[in-house]
Amino acid sequence: MSLDFGPAVALSCRECGTRYDLGPSFACLECFGPLEVAYSFGSVTREDIAAGPANIWRYRSLLPVPTDVTSKQNMNPGWTKLVKADNLGKVLGLRDLHVKDDSGNPTHSFKDRVVAIAVEAARNFGFHTLSCSSTGNLAGAVTAAAARAGLDACVFIPADLEQAKIAMARVFGGKLIGIDGTYDEVNRFCSELIGDPLGDKWGFVNVNLRPYYAEGSKTLAYEIAEQLGWELPDQIIIPVASGSQLTKIDKGFKELISLGLVEDKPYKIFAAQAAGCSPVSTAFKAGHDVVQPVKPNTIAKSLAIGNPADGPYVLDIARRTGGAVEDVTDTEVVSAIKLLASTEGIFAETAGGVTVGVLKKLVESGLLDPSLTTVVLNTGDGLKTLDAIADDAAPTAVIRPSLDAFRAAV
Amino acid sequence: MSLDFGPAVALSCRECGTRYDLGPSFACLECFGPLEVAYSFGSVTREDIAAGPANIWRYRSLLPVPTDVTSKQNMNPGWTKLVKADNLGKVLGLRDLHVKDDSGNPTHSFKDRVVAIAVEAARNFGFHTLSCSSTGNLAGAVTAAAARAGLDACVFIPADLEQAKIAMARVFGGKLIGIDGTYDEVNRFCSELIGDPLGDKWGFVNVNLRPYYAEGSKTLAYEIAEQLGWELPDQIIIPVASGSQLTKIDKGFKELISLGLVEDKPYKIFAAQAAGCSPVSTAFKAGHDVVQPVKPNTIAKSLAIGNPADGPYVLDIARRTGGAVEDVTDTEVVSAIKLLASTEGIFAETAGGVTVGVLKKLVESGLLDPSLTTVVLNTGDGLKTLDAIADDAAPTAVIRPSLDAFRAAV
Repeated sequence: MSLDFGPAVALSCRECGTRYDLGPSFACLECFGPLEVAYSFGSVTREDIAAGPANIWRYRSLLPVPTDVTSKQNMNPGWTKLVKADNLGKVLGLRDLHVKDDSGNPTHSFKDRVVAIAVEAARNFGFHTLSCSSTGNLAGAVTAAAARAGLDACVFIPADLEQAKIAMARVFGGKLIGIDGTYDEVNRFCSELIGDPLGDKWGFVNVNLRPYYAEGSKTLAYEIAEQLGWELPDQIIIPVASGSQLTKIDKGFKELISLGLVEDKPYKIFAAQAAGCSPVSTAFKAGHDVVQPVKPNTIAKSLAIGNPADGPYVLDIARRTGGAVEDVTDTEVVSAIKLLASTEGIFAETAGGVTVGVLKKLVESGLLDPSLTTVVLNTGDGLKTLDAIADDAAPTAVIRPSLDAFRAAV
Repeated sequence: MSLDFGPAVALSCRECGTRYDLGPSFACLECFGPLEVAYSFGSVTREDIAAGPANIWRYRSLLPVPTDVTSKQNMNPGWTKLVKADNLGKVLGLRDLHVKDDSGNPTHSFKDRVVAIAVEAARNFGFHTLSCSSTGNLAGAVTAAAARAGLDACVFIPADLEQAKIAMARVFGGKLIGIDGTYDEVNRFCSELIGDPLGDKWGFVNVNLRPYYAEGSKTLAYEIAEQLGWELPDQIIIPVASGSQLTKIDKGFKELISLGLVEDKPYKIFAAQAAGCSPVSTAFKAGHDVVQPVKPNTIAKSLAIGNPADGPYVLDIARRTGGAVEDVTDTEVVSAIKLLASTEGIFAETAGGVTVGVLKKLVESGLLDPSLTTVVLNTGDGLKTLDAIADDAAPTAVIRPSLDAFRAAV
């Protein structure tokens, strides 16, 4: 098998540093630590990147993908808007606030980024079926990407997900299997399936393709920096489900510094959770290094991972950068969705309500410096979590088509 | 009042050519014909455009907007993906097929384009409230854009719309008034309101701001040509509600030719309607120049305009370019949504099912040349019309998290 992973040269254990050949592996044989992609970057310039396409492949020289990735059938996500949020900033008292709005991706969540990388890994390894455990957004991203890439799809979700996410995971074809259980149970089931002949030649994007898949989140860091004019933000608020996205955004910022693409400067990373699933926030506030698993109970289902694999790394990064981990209640999530919508015209998923709600809380508690450049992530789309605002999903008034009726109504 | 409409110099009657100063007018005082924006274009080069932002403002020198529009609070829509649809093309037997996917816009429909222009007109005229009659998508686009622009919003819809469209029109704030009646009745009501003191200083984007608003659709033509490498497509399939979008895409192509930005060549414009609301298709097939109004009955609610204002122009353009007007049943619409999703990973609204369904029908009937470069428009997002695929909105199977249960299910 001839592999082309561009600048990627090996897998490396995040804990003990043991290196492995590039393959569909995800855990260190020595210490069971998670494997990460290791690179040998060539010279990368701002100009080369700017000359690339308006999607994540403008950063292909920093990603584990084939050199000719732009000629492949892929969803080509990314290069979503970084919205200068002056209205929201004014309400919250922030001088320079930006919303990175990943609802603009093909299936309207940041998951298109990570799946796009996993698709290329699946091709490299000759897998015929693309699979995942998912809290919803990922299932849609995987089935869509598989359809376009000409791969089979079979994805696994907790059976009680939002209708819109289920519909979106079905319409692209492929099999959608509901599991009677939590996301963490779905995840364990997928790990079993990988060891079974049934799962042979299957690429589970967030299990055996995870080292590649996870790298897709680095593109959020690259885009934010490029869209800020090749500068790092001072403060960034990132939602935490497994914690992978947050750790990779930190990795992306560090790569940009070491490649000389941005000036080195301190930045603070803040992690956001829903109170109904806040194991990392709880550990942060208690000063612990270990994350105690919880059973999720929140409307922010896309963040409802009770046993976050990268939780300890999130704690470490928040502490190292001078950030924090905070959580908000479901009521605060709904208020934050409405606040963002009515100030910036951005309709966020519950996960976006979590980050904006945490942003508000951090300003109020003084943990965030309102004079600095701040970026808050919206990772999904409000149309997928309509139930959260169902109380308002009716017209202000229903009238006959006459001026008198309108006068009476207003 | 000092107006800045960039290259726009006047309004001009589409029927008799009478010219008027730029103002919130929409009908000719001489002949009641519709008013259009007239321009005095300076020199416009491909390089200037390519150096612009990744949104419709890259074409600001061809639009009725202020020179400094990029510094305004606006949703900045556009520059959506032109997807090379080789999988769908293979299924249909087309050699070079592209999907222009406007679900990537901020509120996930092409309406963000036209509203963005209307917002700048409303500002120019000192209006404080943004309004519209809407079949759903427009209401969300208007309330979102008003929120971001700092304007009030009050929008009018038929009361029986899809829940997702109602929710999306409410979450951004502003008033949402449901009217007991069809879209055409909503529209007539809005025309009355403009003449009433209640509607003073209100910008109805598709009534008194219509000449400006409608120009936003030209950006679809510009983007398609630029994304094809500054070439016009040979064939394009466009959905018809009022018909405005189709006439403006034709106008956009002609402007690109006359400005020397693309080579002059023949192109065929095909119009697509749902069988349950097909007044233009009916007139085309009967050889009529006049469009008889109908009462709509189709799941493609965003196209359910029974009395399309620009119907006669659509007939004229389809005939002049050698195209056609065709319609498909609701069943064909649903099949086409699934076909597009399962081949390209694009989840289209019912309106996209109409265009893809018509595309298929035109290939089968031989009206479309399968060897030529063909573009089909998807103007909206499947998440807003979930009812259309509700029968499939359930998992393939629901199982306990065990390999045995999975084996039994597959």
